[in-house]
Amino acid sequence: MTRIDGRKAGELRPVQMDTEYLIHPEGSVLITVGQTKVICTATIEEKVPPFLRGQGKGWVTAEYSMLPRATNSRNRRESSQGKVGGRTMEIQRLIGRALRAVVDLEKLGERTLWIDCDVIQADGGTRTASITGAFVAMTMAIGELDLPAFPVTDFLAATSVGIDEEIGAILDLNYVEDSTAEVDMNLVMTGAGHFVELQGTGEEATFSRAQLNELLDLGEAGISQLIEMQKQVLGKIALRVGEEVNSNL
Amino acid sequence: MTRIDGRKAGELRPVQMDTEYLIHPEGSVLITVGQTKVICTATIEEKVPPFLRGQGKGWVTAEYSMLPRATNSRNRRESSQGKVGGRTMEIQRLIGRALRAVVDLEKLGERTLWIDCDVIQADGGTRTASITGAFVAMTMAIGELDLPAFPVTDFLAATSVGIDEEIGAILDLNYVEDSTAEVDMNLVMTGAGHFVELQGTGEEATFSRAQLNELLDLGEAGISQLIEMQKQVLGKIALRVGEEVNSNL
Amino acid sequence: MTRIDGRKAGELRPVQMDTEYLIHPEGSVLITVGQTKVICTATIEEKVPPFLRGQGKGWVTAEYSMLPRATNSRNRRESSQGKVGGRTMEIQRLIGRALRAVVDLEKLGERTLWIDCDVIQADGGTRTASITGAFVAMTMAIGELDLPAFPVTDFLAATSVGIDEEIGAILDLNYVEDSTAEVDMNLVMTGAGHFVELQGTGEEATFSRAQLNELLDLGEAGISQLIEMQKQVLGKIALRVGEEVNSNL
Amino acid sequence: MTRIDGRKAGELRPVQMDTEYLIHPEGSVLITVGQTKVICTATIEEKVPPFLRGQGKGWVTAEYSMLPRATNSRNRRESSQGKVGGRTMEIQRLIGRALRAVVDLEKLGERTLWIDCDVIQADGGTRTASITGAFVAMTMAIGELDLPAFPVTDFLAATSVGIDEEIGAILDLNYVEDSTAEVDMNLVMTGAGHFVELQGTGEEATFSRAQLNELLDLGEAGISQLIEMQKQVLGKIALRVGEEVNSNL
Amino acid sequence: MTRIDGRKAGELRPVQMDTEYLIHPEGSVLITVGQTKVICTATIEEKVPPFLRGQGKGWVTAEYSMLPRATNSRNRRESSQGKVGGRTMEIQRLIGRALRAVVDLEKLGERTLWIDCDVIQADGGTRTASITGAFVAMTMAIGELDLPAFPVTDFLAATSVGIDEEIGAILDLNYVEDSTAEVDMNLVMTGAGHFVELQGTGEEATFSRAQLNELLDLGEAGISQLIEMQKQVLGKIALRVGEEVNSNL
Amino acid sequence: MTRIDGRKAGELRPVQMDTEYLIHPEGSVLITVGQTKVICTATIEEKVPPFLRGQGKGWVTAEYSMLPRATNSRNRRESSQGKVGGRTMEIQRLIGRALRAVVDLEKLGERTLWIDCDVIQADGGTRTASITGAFVAMTMAIGELDLPAFPVTDFLAATSVGIDEEIGAILDLNYVEDSTAEVDMNLVMTGAGHFVELQGTGEEATFSRAQLNELLDLGEAGISQLIEMQKQVLGKIALRVGEEVNSNL
Repeated sequence: MTRIDGRKAGELRPVQMDTEYLIHPEGSVLITVGQTKVICTATIEEKVPPFLRGQGKGWVTAEYSMLPRATNSRNRRESSQGKVGGRTMEIQRLIGRALRAVVDLEKLGERTLWIDCDVIQADGGTRTASITGAFVAMTMAIGELDLPAFPVTDFLAATSVGIDEEIGAILDLNYVEDSTAEVDMNLVMTGAGHFVELQGTGEEATFSRAQLNELLDLGEAGISQLIEMQKQVLGKIALRVGEEVNSNL
Repeated sequence: MTRIDGRKAGELRPVQMDTEYLIHPEGSVLITVGQTKVICTATIEEKVPPFLRGQGKGWVTAEYSMLPRATNSRNRRESSQGKVGGRTMEIQRLIGRALRAVVDLEKLGERTLWIDCDVIQADGGTRTASITGAFVAMTMAIGELDLPAFPVTDFLAATSVGIDEEIGAILDLNYVEDSTAEVDMNLVMTGAGHFVELQGTGEEATFSRAQLNELLDLGEAGISQLIEMQKQVLGKIALRVGEEVNSNL
Repeated sequence: MTRIDGRKAGELRPVQMDTEYLIHPEGSVLITVGQTKVICTATIEEKVPPFLRGQGKGWVTAEYSMLPRATNSRNRRESSQGKVGGRTMEIQRLIGRALRAVVDLEKLGERTLWIDCDVIQADGGTRTASITGAFVAMTMAIGELDLPAFPVTDFLAATSVGIDEEIGAILDLNYVEDSTAEVDMNLVMTGAGHFVELQGTGEEATFSRAQLNELLDLGEAGISQLIEMQKQVLGKIALRVGEEVNSNL
Repeated sequence: MTRIDGRKAGELRPVQMDTEYLIHPEGSVLITVGQTKVICTATIEEKVPPFLRGQGKGWVTAEYSMLPRATNSRNRRESSQGKVGGRTMEIQRLIGRALRAVVDLEKLGERTLWIDCDVIQADGGTRTASITGAFVAMTMAIGELDLPAFPVTDFLAATSVGIDEEIGAILDLNYVEDSTAEVDMNLVMTGAGHFVELQGTGEEATFSRAQLNELLDLGEAGISQLIEMQKQVLGKIALRVGEEVNSNL
Repeated sequence: MTRIDGRKAGELRPVQMDTEYLIHPEGSVLITVGQTKVICTATIEEKVPPFLRGQGKGWVTAEYSMLPRATNSRNRRESSQGKVGGRTMEIQRLIGRALRAVVDLEKLGERTLWIDCDVIQADGGTRTASITGAFVAMTMAIGELDLPAFPVTDFLAATSVGIDEEIGAILDLNYVEDSTAEVDMNLVMTGAGHFVELQGTGEEATFSRAQLNELLDLGEAGISQLIEMQKQVLGKIALRVGEEVNSNL
Repeated sequence: MTRIDGRKAGELRPVQMDTEYLIHPEGSVLITVGQTKVICTATIEEKVPPFLRGQGKGWVTAEYSMLPRATNSRNRRESSQGKVGGRTMEIQRLIGRALRAVVDLEKLGERTLWIDCDVIQADGGTRTASITGAFVAMTMAIGELDLPAFPVTDFLAATSVGIDEEIGAILDLNYVEDSTAEVDMNLVMTGAGHFVELQGTGEEATFSRAQLNELLDLGEAGISQLIEMQKQVLGKIALRVGEEVNSNL
């Protein structure tokens, strides 16, 4: 049985990463995953939030938003609602936390990396596409800093997996699949194959340990392909990722 | 090597659930897990949110808050900040989603269950204690409704697991353990031993698949003990949980 | 003619004050007045608001809130409404002002006392119970400071009085009495029997000077009983209240 | 010993009420009390708030504000702060409550009276001037309605009294007196000499029952003069105030 | 064909400017244009906003508001809506920008002029009346500063022009004319006859270049009359406006 | 003397309009004017705002926003500031008003057109590019409706003109030119060469009538070129614009 868009259960959608997409930011990427498109930018600010001042450490923080017509029906702007919604907050906290897992904040020095992920078009998987794209934008911006020790300690990418009632475990769900899946899980992993985040939810459903293991197998394979693509678009700068770690081996 | 409070790696803190703690709500519980204390109440409202009207289905939603001095240093009230923070939103979305996984919304009928979890005293694990307590308050409130078919399809409880640098995988982390753990994972599971939510985070750290399996083993055992306690405090009403499911076997 | 709960016109409801109710705050009390229950905590912060900086004086400020199901029907959280309501503001301004009347801010030194009154269960008289309980929590927290001169200059307690259409003047109104009373008055008084606050309101009614005098007589007697209870729960620390004043006589 | 502006202890400041001050509102007055100037308007809306619908009763509600330079130093607009402050809320709740005490809401019928009190220039006593002026604007607007039974049951005016350290009890405090007074009390009374509101505060001070009685004597005399002035500016319409009450005698 | 209030096409409404209208502000004016009345005040603050600090330059900023019953039906206060509306923001940005065009910010020195325009009664043209009045209040406040070089470089006034379907181009529209005009234009000009702001809008209509020229002719003539009146009320201080400019000729 | 980017005084920057840029909206365009890039979308909602209900007329409204790194330094999101700023409000009101001037709201019927203009990259002229692009997106969305009478009555485009100290009047200012121009004017005009909006501002400068005429000449020429490009990208649908008007000639 094949998926709605003809993919196999363990197949990613076509992925593209257009780097230096905008002229102003220190790092920028337009990441396309199927019909999902996200502009990821990285901004370097030469100061840190109050709770970190004077500790010689940096910070990485992220914001996430959708254009009103990124979605099939228009969603109201959070600015005109006067507040940032719960889903947005959850996603931007996730992106920031995930990126910090592969940045050595001491090597970064007292500066803040602002990551902005703006969804131009949504078709499922916007938060995982944001993480995969944000890693590229961030790494390029850090490359511009020309620091003595490169603060990015490993590659980082994310994808979704889920359980379709008929097909079973599937990789990289589009919007229709996501809406009908019984279980939805987001995985963030490193180049070394370790977990950074694992968020599985069975909204109005549950899943067994055996199903969990199937989902993890699919996710690991998908993320390892995404990291290969990141290495290609990053080119030379990819060589610097994790170099400090390797040099200490 | 023992834990800071003398527990074994796989040992829960002392748990207590005082039901009918307040006079006004349809269901209420004061749940105590070690030094963590949460008042959970359930309110029945005879209408549903706009997106569900006229569909013959009910809804379960949750709110979570902390008293200013639930914590060691005073935390500012969200009401005087004029907005609900990201952490609060994330937690209350989690509680609502988790409970809905074990409620048959059609059997509930067109009514909303408002779950309020107010942390009186915090010492780690407030979100998982909230879920475990909220299940009890909700089930008691539903019991009051005297519906023909009982809408609660299974038991539900939650706990945390994590990795301590020296001890390894541990169950039910208190605040000090939570602050120093390399990996922190919250598990929500059913009486049948299935997962409802699985949220693992390695803030500034990562974890391997083998470590994940260790964490899941500890968590499963802990949750099964919590569900035993729920059965005891619920008494007769516990017999009705999942009865429709069983009757269909 | 007797009152709805069998009390005499001038009789207080049963009162209980559980001190050291929480582990984190510098002072804490659970005050119970009939079915009304309020958690009062006192927090010491070693700085003052901007308008007082550098003057060698301290400050006392209060916040008040109700849990959503402290009341018979659920009241919406002020945090999710994004603002603090008029009634809440009025009450917390009253609590802070009342406490400041018995604190020598110079002896307190450049620090702020944050008083939090959180109503767990409401059955009338939550603002006066908050003041009576807050005085105890505050005095205990100040006791911890071990200051050379004790800044609390007198005892302080509060109660309500009102006029029932049939019974006439009554003391310490519960919710039902409060809802039907023609006149409602809150009194805050000191151990010396002086007024600190006097707020009488005849919503859709008025009252004469003779009625006012009756109300004041009842209130004075009630407050003097509450202060006796405060002395008992405060134990040794009660001896220090007002000692500077006495030493100057 | 005389007061700072040469008045005797029991003397009001010069009072003026310019009616029909604005062309648009149903009732309007510019009330001047010494240097304090407040524009009071009354608006009639032909519907009631949700909690009163279908009960055949009306409602009276008030809003209060100050121009930024009503005061000696500029105060920031509440609109640009994004919220109404605690002091403002307290005052507007007081004004509405006071007016409702002399309006028969059933005779008013299902309509809302919006009272707006905007302080153009402040020199102490803005809330009591607002009440005195609002009564006039409201009564004129109600007069326009030409109702079969006149809903205003009595006159209503307000003033302040206080205790000056050197002079003792004084009437109608200006800003300088208010800032230095040990005790500050606002009184709202009816034409019949009954109390509607009584709010006495000893910020950082207390007062005895004997002092309270002195303050009440001064206040009663002042309010009775204010009501005489209201009768004059209201002219013919004054005759209708309380006529239903009198007709029932 | 004459206008609704009997004026000729190119005739201003009666204008009055009452200076020193309030006791507290450094400069104040009540400007009356027909039935439109605006209180304009100027406040001098001895500091500048962050973006100007340390540059030896001052700043001029404006706020605009309407009393709820300035208009025919009551408009809701922006403070109780919790935000400043788009129309208000547009107007206050316009007032500030216009005034800054005739103030030499370096001669002003590191201080901020806060201009407040509060509409007491509205009958069309409130924004242009605000500018004309604000110029007077500002110039008087600056006069109080007694600076070595007078920072006001020219006079400034504003009016509206529009196209009436039957009469054609008209000057200084009242509310009824404004509501029915096909084109509405606000003009801000200097004593030298130069433009500072020109805002023409054909809501649901358009206008040709020939019509534009007619409108500009009317507006120029009207503004020059307004500036004559400003000179009269400013008296001696009018002589200082632009003196630096003239001295450099 | 040539401009900073080599253009002549009356030369537009290169303009491109990519239609059907997104898959979800009823109409969408990415408009590029030099380095300025704006995504314009049009959404059709089958209802109107409350003030228009039941009148058989439609509505056109617009929202405008910038991505945080559309600009050279990161600008804070309005959603996280909790409010929409004054500049944004001014711009979105302008866009909506301008579009309504060329839409016959009765022919549109009871539906709302939501126009969203999101600036992806900014280099001056974002509001005028938004209007020019929004016209295209709107017209395409209306084309989809297949209405009996086409509601778009004329073409509409916008550009900026200004006065450079050295070069004099210039057309279509980029960011650097805009920052240094003495006078800045935005023009919105129709295919018939009539004005819809004219907003000229001399921040800290003024301009004469002769200069105004020069600016208008440049602007007219530029807008007529923009409208030619609109006709090309709209293709067949361009033929329907204004057809009702023509058929009535």
